[in-house]
Amino acid sequence: MIQDVQSLFEAVQRGELPAEAAFARLSGLPVRDLGHTRLDVEREARCGVPEIVFAAGKTPQQTVEIARALLDEHGRFLATRVPDATAAALVDAFPALDWHERARCALLDRRRRRVERGRVLVLGAGTSDEPVADEAAITARFVGARTELLRDVGVAGLHRLLAHQDDLRASDALVVVAGMEGALPSVVAGLVDVPVVAVPTSVGYGASFGGLAALLAMLNSCAAGVTVVNIDNGFGAGFAAARIAARTGGRAE
Amino acid sequence: MIQDVQSLFEAVQRGELPAEAAFARLSGLPVRDLGHTRLDVEREARCGVPEIVFAAGKTPQQTVEIARALLDEHGRFLATRVPDATAAALVDAFPALDWHERARCALLDRRRRRVERGRVLVLGAGTSDEPVADEAAITARFVGARTELLRDVGVAGLHRLLAHQDDLRASDALVVVAGMEGALPSVVAGLVDVPVVAVPTSVGYGASFGGLAALLAMLNSCAAGVTVVNIDNGFGAGFAAARIAARTGGRAE
Amino acid sequence: MIQDVQSLFEAVQRGELPAEAAFARLSGLPVRDLGHTRLDVEREARCGVPEIVFAAGKTPQQTVEIARALLDEHGRFLATRVPDATAAALVDAFPALDWHERARCALLDRRRRRVERGRVLVLGAGTSDEPVADEAAITARFVGARTELLRDVGVAGLHRLLAHQDDLRASDALVVVAGMEGALPSVVAGLVDVPVVAVPTSVGYGASFGGLAALLAMLNSCAAGVTVVNIDNGFGAGFAAARIAARTGGRAE
Amino acid sequence: MIQDVQSLFEAVQRGELPAEAAFARLSGLPVRDLGHTRLDVEREARCGVPEIVFAAGKTPQQTVEIARALLDEHGRFLATRVPDATAAALVDAFPALDWHERARCALLDRRRRRVERGRVLVLGAGTSDEPVADEAAITARFVGARTELLRDVGVAGLHRLLAHQDDLRASDALVVVAGMEGALPSVVAGLVDVPVVAVPTSVGYGASFGGLAALLAMLNSCAAGVTVVNIDNGFGAGFAAARIAARTGGRAE
Amino acid sequence: MIQDVQSLFEAVQRGELPAEAAFARLSGLPVRDLGHTRLDVEREARCGVPEIVFAAGKTPQQTVEIARALLDEHGRFLATRVPDATAAALVDAFPALDWHERARCALLDRRRRRVERGRVLVLGAGTSDEPVADEAAITARFVGARTELLRDVGVAGLHRLLAHQDDLRASDALVVVAGMEGALPSVVAGLVDVPVVAVPTSVGYGASFGGLAALLAMLNSCAAGVTVVNIDNGFGAGFAAARIAARTGGRAE
Amino acid sequence: MIQDVQSLFEAVQRGELPAEAAFARLSGLPVRDLGHTRLDVEREARCGVPEIVFAAGKTPQQTVEIARALLDEHGRFLATRVPDATAAALVDAFPALDWHERARCALLDRRRRRVERGRVLVLGAGTSDEPVADEAAITARFVGARTELLRDVGVAGLHRLLAHQDDLRASDALVVVAGMEGALPSVVAGLVDVPVVAVPTSVGYGASFGGLAALLAMLNSCAAGVTVVNIDNGFGAGFAAARIAARTGGRAE
Amino acid sequence: MIQDVQSLFEAVQRGELPAEAAFARLSGLPVRDLGHTRLDVEREARCGVPEIVFAAGKTPQQTVEIARALLDEHGRFLATRVPDATAAALVDAFPALDWHERARCALLDRRRRRVERGRVLVLGAGTSDEPVADEAAITARFVGARTELLRDVGVAGLHRLLAHQDDLRASDALVVVAGMEGALPSVVAGLVDVPVVAVPTSVGYGASFGGLAALLAMLNSCAAGVTVVNIDNGFGAGFAAARIAARTGGRAE
Amino acid sequence: MIQDVQSLFEAVQRGELPAEAAFARLSGLPVRDLGHTRLDVEREARCGVPEIVFAAGKTPQQTVEIARALLDEHGRFLATRVPDATAAALVDAFPALDWHERARCALLDRRRRRVERGRVLVLGAGTSDEPVADEAAITARFVGARTELLRDVGVAGLHRLLAHQDDLRASDALVVVAGMEGALPSVVAGLVDVPVVAVPTSVGYGASFGGLAALLAMLNSCAAGVTVVNIDNGFGAGFAAARIAARTGGRAE
Repeated sequence: MIQDVQSLFEAVQRGELPAEAAFARLSGLPVRDLGHTRLDVEREARCGVPEIVFAAGKTPQQTVEIARALLDEHGRFLATRVPDATAAALVDAFPALDWHERARCALLDRRRRRVERGRVLVLGAGTSDEPVADEAAITARFVGARTELLRDVGVAGLHRLLAHQDDLRASDALVVVAGMEGALPSVVAGLVDVPVVAVPTSVGYGASFGGLAALLAMLNSCAAGVTVVNIDNGFGAGFAAARIAARTGGRAE
Repeated sequence: MIQDVQSLFEAVQRGELPAEAAFARLSGLPVRDLGHTRLDVEREARCGVPEIVFAAGKTPQQTVEIARALLDEHGRFLATRVPDATAAALVDAFPALDWHERARCALLDRRRRRVERGRVLVLGAGTSDEPVADEAAITARFVGARTELLRDVGVAGLHRLLAHQDDLRASDALVVVAGMEGALPSVVAGLVDVPVVAVPTSVGYGASFGGLAALLAMLNSCAAGVTVVNIDNGFGAGFAAARIAARTGGRAE
Repeated sequence: MIQDVQSLFEAVQRGELPAEAAFARLSGLPVRDLGHTRLDVEREARCGVPEIVFAAGKTPQQTVEIARALLDEHGRFLATRVPDATAAALVDAFPALDWHERARCALLDRRRRRVERGRVLVLGAGTSDEPVADEAAITARFVGARTELLRDVGVAGLHRLLAHQDDLRASDALVVVAGMEGALPSVVAGLVDVPVVAVPTSVGYGASFGGLAALLAMLNSCAAGVTVVNIDNGFGAGFAAARIAARTGGRAE
Repeated sequence: MIQDVQSLFEAVQRGELPAEAAFARLSGLPVRDLGHTRLDVEREARCGVPEIVFAAGKTPQQTVEIARALLDEHGRFLATRVPDATAAALVDAFPALDWHERARCALLDRRRRRVERGRVLVLGAGTSDEPVADEAAITARFVGARTELLRDVGVAGLHRLLAHQDDLRASDALVVVAGMEGALPSVVAGLVDVPVVAVPTSVGYGASFGGLAALLAMLNSCAAGVTVVNIDNGFGAGFAAARIAARTGGRAE
Repeated sequence: MIQDVQSLFEAVQRGELPAEAAFARLSGLPVRDLGHTRLDVEREARCGVPEIVFAAGKTPQQTVEIARALLDEHGRFLATRVPDATAAALVDAFPALDWHERARCALLDRRRRRVERGRVLVLGAGTSDEPVADEAAITARFVGARTELLRDVGVAGLHRLLAHQDDLRASDALVVVAGMEGALPSVVAGLVDVPVVAVPTSVGYGASFGGLAALLAMLNSCAAGVTVVNIDNGFGAGFAAARIAARTGGRAE
Repeated sequence: MIQDVQSLFEAVQRGELPAEAAFARLSGLPVRDLGHTRLDVEREARCGVPEIVFAAGKTPQQTVEIARALLDEHGRFLATRVPDATAAALVDAFPALDWHERARCALLDRRRRRVERGRVLVLGAGTSDEPVADEAAITARFVGARTELLRDVGVAGLHRLLAHQDDLRASDALVVVAGMEGALPSVVAGLVDVPVVAVPTSVGYGASFGGLAALLAMLNSCAAGVTVVNIDNGFGAGFAAARIAARTGGRAE
Repeated sequence: MIQDVQSLFEAVQRGELPAEAAFARLSGLPVRDLGHTRLDVEREARCGVPEIVFAAGKTPQQTVEIARALLDEHGRFLATRVPDATAAALVDAFPALDWHERARCALLDRRRRRVERGRVLVLGAGTSDEPVADEAAITARFVGARTELLRDVGVAGLHRLLAHQDDLRASDALVVVAGMEGALPSVVAGLVDVPVVAVPTSVGYGASFGGLAALLAMLNSCAAGVTVVNIDNGFGAGFAAARIAARTGGRAE
Repeated sequence: MIQDVQSLFEAVQRGELPAEAAFARLSGLPVRDLGHTRLDVEREARCGVPEIVFAAGKTPQQTVEIARALLDEHGRFLATRVPDATAAALVDAFPALDWHERARCALLDRRRRRVERGRVLVLGAGTSDEPVADEAAITARFVGARTELLRDVGVAGLHRLLAHQDDLRASDALVVVAGMEGALPSVVAGLVDVPVVAVPTSVGYGASFGGLAALLAMLNSCAAGVTVVNIDNGFGAGFAAARIAARTGGRAE
């Protein structure tokens, strides 16, 4: 946001822009107003990736309109937490839509050229954690990381995990998805020195309290280097991991 | 309790005891009234071990009187959660007292002959968990199990644990004490088929919420065979483990 | 797991196995990969019982495939928390399926010879607790204990419980299932010296908070010897009780 | 309050009181203003007992002044949760003070003639619960019930309780004080048909969460007829029980 | 329970009963076993009222069977928390059934002669609290109190309450039902000296947390004499109030 | 309420009203009894606005009857949290009904002349928060403020907010609606010196715990001048903001 | 903040300021850096009142330095939550300091001319709530409202409150401070149409949970027009109330 | 750990190591046993940094012994959460100790040559958050990142933050420390595309619940790219940030 201010000052100084117009642009320009939603169309420039649509509380029509605007501006969009009715509306509007039912993610990417920066590996503790792991992987890929997914590598059978240690070490960031007692991130962070983003899931019996048990366990991990995102927040973990991986400068085209 | 009723009926039938006396004995006898406390002096016969004194909310004088009564009846006593003032009073009253400061346990055993039944192994995840692990070991020994203690075998360095796998398998019950994310019981229960009693401790940073994180993690363990006791409840875990071990019939004199 | 390492070292030393193959086997062998799920096929050898399927978060197709693989490897399987659609799919796939609707458990056992080790008694406090009590009993039986179930013996009418004290004393482990105020395990543990595994259930009015009240009550039991599993976790309690009972060596064929 | 309004209307109608004075009296009269505190001096007439002083948040000087005003108006006072400094100040001010250190209660009663209405029995589960049980008994007596106290009758040894069943049945209201798992009120309410006021205490290990476990257990009691007051609120329980007992009309002088 | 023991001892002493039969009767007699449920058929003698059926977790068939058994033994039954399917089954089985849909209560009373003991007044704070208030009134009536119901007398318009002060004072026990901030019991208890049983309801916006806000408010009432039951527990409040009212000896035929 | 008492006293003094009638009027008059509901018909005089109907726990028929009574007394009504069935019933009863489906609000205003007092601006952080923001705006308008609504001005793109700073400063009270981390009110209160009423919404992922995260964040706002209402309580916020705005005396006809 | 941007653009356009200097000023000017603390010295211009110091986590030396800087810039300061050591240091540094021990507030005001805008009335429910009520009153006065304090007007004796109804109606904003069940704000908001800011306090027995009970009660108030601040946050309530009162335009010099 | 296994297999194959010795080394070697603590001396090789000592639950003597062993093995150590007595003992043992009192950190680094990898910037929201921010910075430096600290840049004065945007963008990882409503990480993550590790602190008024409010706010951040560590866990955040920065390959000697 600041860079705009600085260059706007310079444009005013150069006489290219009246003060009033500069101020108007500062407050008004980067927004594209859809009535219900104000798109932050310069976020890609500022933060490296366009807005991603959280579809859960929106009507199908609203999500379709936002998706269309994003496609116009950026040539691609990703919607998460997509309800069934919204998915149907998106498929109608964009026949080429890439729809991941289990992960509740819909995306479309019309860009000609894509660059991958860094490698992310997503680990899922159990079969029941897969929707969240999928959401993480889809998001990390959309944000720009080369992303792989390793399923069903829970704590109860550690040797399943040990068999993949090379993949772990070759990654720039790990997303570790686990429900129940949430011990997997601690074990993974004890094995390698790659940053670990832990995602608690709401999978579990009664006193998991909708994922609270796993969340607290991960926050209290005795293994240093673990950071945590919200319960079932595959999106946030994938985004953070891709952002971490992108810093490595490693380009993986 | 029931066996008393049955034998009392028979005594009444045999004319050895008037109905009124039988009823009086049922309600009154097994209690020894100290004014402030009513000792359940037949608990050893009924449950295999005399009452163990929870000293935290009692005055030093009360605890000394209870200890003396237990010594009279059973030849031994164990007090847990002993405050400093009470410890001093007990040492005054019983110069031969066995006082474990870190574990806050005081005990005295004047029995000539002791029988150990079954083997208990207590595992402590970290140095900070040791007071609780000690309480568990002292209790298990008092209840009657041959008991060993293995310190500082946390999840972050699993090979420390693997080095002791024979000891684990040779036990009849395991007590696993851990704070923070409480993952150790899950890992242990995945390695061996010995019953695991998990004890969460209040060791940890902010969102451990006084041990709640570890408690929930243990209740949600993905490894079957784990049961849990209250936070910092080394006493309860040692008692339960010794009771489990005693069932094996294995006598370890 | 360790024993494999040791024997693998010896095989390498004897020249029977190249180092590379030994390492590959260590990491790769015991897993049977179904795509979505990696079966830990050596768990029976290691822990005494094959993996039990938690069907709640899996698709019907996934559960059927896992069940078939387990049947191949071990001659039997047990699935818990089975949704209706999955139950239907299992019945289609295995016409001989043993389906317990109320307990949401499906099992099949094609083994010719079974050995029972130890006795487990499951006590249910009220009619509403029965699905959980059933799950505990089915699991304990599957793990290998001779198992009985005693229904509706709540605290409000203690004499119902007293009538069965011989059954209690003859058991190697007790599972006590109770909702509401969760007082039954304390009362049972005060009567006998058999290990008690307490299961809180989510049965109750408002401030039971989905079983939290019973869970906390059981964790705070003033009667020593009680250990606790997660809310509604009949599976975990049955498993732990059977593991305890199996240690007694008592074979009950 | 209403009766005043009605009689004030009548006084105005009879010309004994101008409208303005009637309204002034309605709003202003029954308060005695001490600067920091406004005493509700007609509460005894309205509710049967004068204000009882909660001394915890007040300065010693404030409590002494309130006590003196109550003594003036009603010939007696009771202060609960009295800090040490306040107790010393009260003893200085009222040498005849009746000071109960463990229960933190101070009282003085200069009335010549007292009438007791109804019988209250207070039961304490353990030695550690006694300060709360004492507060309940002192309060019930102050409010006007003949009150007895029965100590250390916890669930773990039920026969201690059974020995006193006649006392239970002879009471008009029972106060049952218990910490830890809070099971005692359920058991008592299952034995007799006397109203039971349950008081959870903050006595217990970690997951008692300062008495929350006992509170929830009592609220979820499966035995009908149990009502509950706040944690450690011996005052509230004694007050409610005395109010219940007073309804019986049974005068116990 | 105790009285039976005493008279059984006497019967054995008189030779009227062999010891074995006495013991068998003690443990076995008062239970009527329906397979799924063990009815405590002597509870009416012991506690003054037969078992009341909590129908929520039972199958329609189970509830019908229990109801029939209660009708046999006691000439009446009351079922609370009745699901729709169970209500239909009860209507089929007992065409004369008294079915209160909003309160989810079903009852039938074939006794010729009924005695009412004491007066209970149930106050409901708002229209939305009525199902709970109804349950309280139905239960109090079933237990034996003359019971009235006063609707929609919330705190926001205190004069609605003041208009009924005579009814309040004429009662032996008050049940006060309120959701949201739960202030009504405090206000009522400040007006009269009748025992108040407070029932928090789950009525409210977000941070009412299913009635927790009202529950905590009632437990913390600054007005002495208030006791509390579980959230939405109209049954418990009605039962307790009727038990309190019954102590007054006031017979209201 | 008091003013009535004072004038009633005067009427009695003037002999215009017998004491009995005065008292009857005090307790009885302002209530209009619909059987299920007692309308506080003088609330408009006392508090400036008629009762607003919380329709969530009422039957359609009850809400229609209350609405009709309010229309009779005050010429208008507003119902919030209107279920579908109730909305249909209201449309049937009042064809001119103003029905806002997303906000679940129904209102009708037949008054000829309306006066607006003060300006309220409602800010919604995201598209998903709009139902709550709408409820706030509708309520503020009904209570009497000139009300505008600004959508989708969340923290993630602060410049969207900055563009509207003049509107913020021109308001007499701001309602700020936000879910997730609830940071928007802090940012707004840091920009202007207009009173801010913050409304947390239940929009969010797992550990938002139904809006608890946003509620706590708002209560802990480091920006002074923020006050908070219940989760999703657009009604309460709109009401409070309109009441604040009305104090400015600024009439906006 | 924005107004600066706009005028900065204009200065650049007029050639009075180079672009670089404009940008530097935007980011750098309004801060006065004390090393440990960066004072926002333009907040008075922007928000109407200088920064108020939260002294709880600061060293005495830090607070003294901040106070001195504020005195330099604005001629006055207010510090809240002042620890004893900091109070002593402030008295040393500023002999004319106005120190309120019970409220933990220290202030100094060297301005010659003060203008009061609007009237705030602070109501305290009990003697124990006074420190919080004092903090609210001191803050409201500092922010600029004419402020009065009314003590000990709790719910239990409503007539104490009724006697002051004229004061309530004459205020522009009310702060209502209450602990325990937190019912007072609901009652006050039902009597008058003045905005009510409710402050829950941590005063109370066990299940008040440090003020949570009162907080939840106030958030769930059935009386519209109530908004809430954090537990014990007299500062926040006083600030918000003064801000509300200031909008009325009523100048009270 | 695995790499050891693989090279051990190869050594056995080459006949350089008997199978038994290989297995012994696998389980036993990397541990250095201090009696109370088992040091994982190969962690530096495996995870890039030696064990860091959590001193809170250890005796001074234990911490000194661990520190000495680490100094032997790695030439440096860092202890966090150091109590006063332990600090004194460390100063005695290591006169050159680097002791940070406010951050409770003690460290010593005798290595000749150090390499810094990557840049970490730690932002503290307020003066009260500084101990946690210091702990984060000290840890990040110890782990190997070039680390700067920016103090007192809270949300309430956003321009303080904007002045440092170049520093933000030049970093490889940001640690953002904030208490109260915890909004700062959301704002920071909205400005730049650098990974943000958020640390909630326990700074705040009542309903911050020891940092829970800030923790939940951060977990629910609407700005993607934020990950969270435990409350007050400066250590964990500094460690994770340094690990992220180290991946960039940027060497900053």
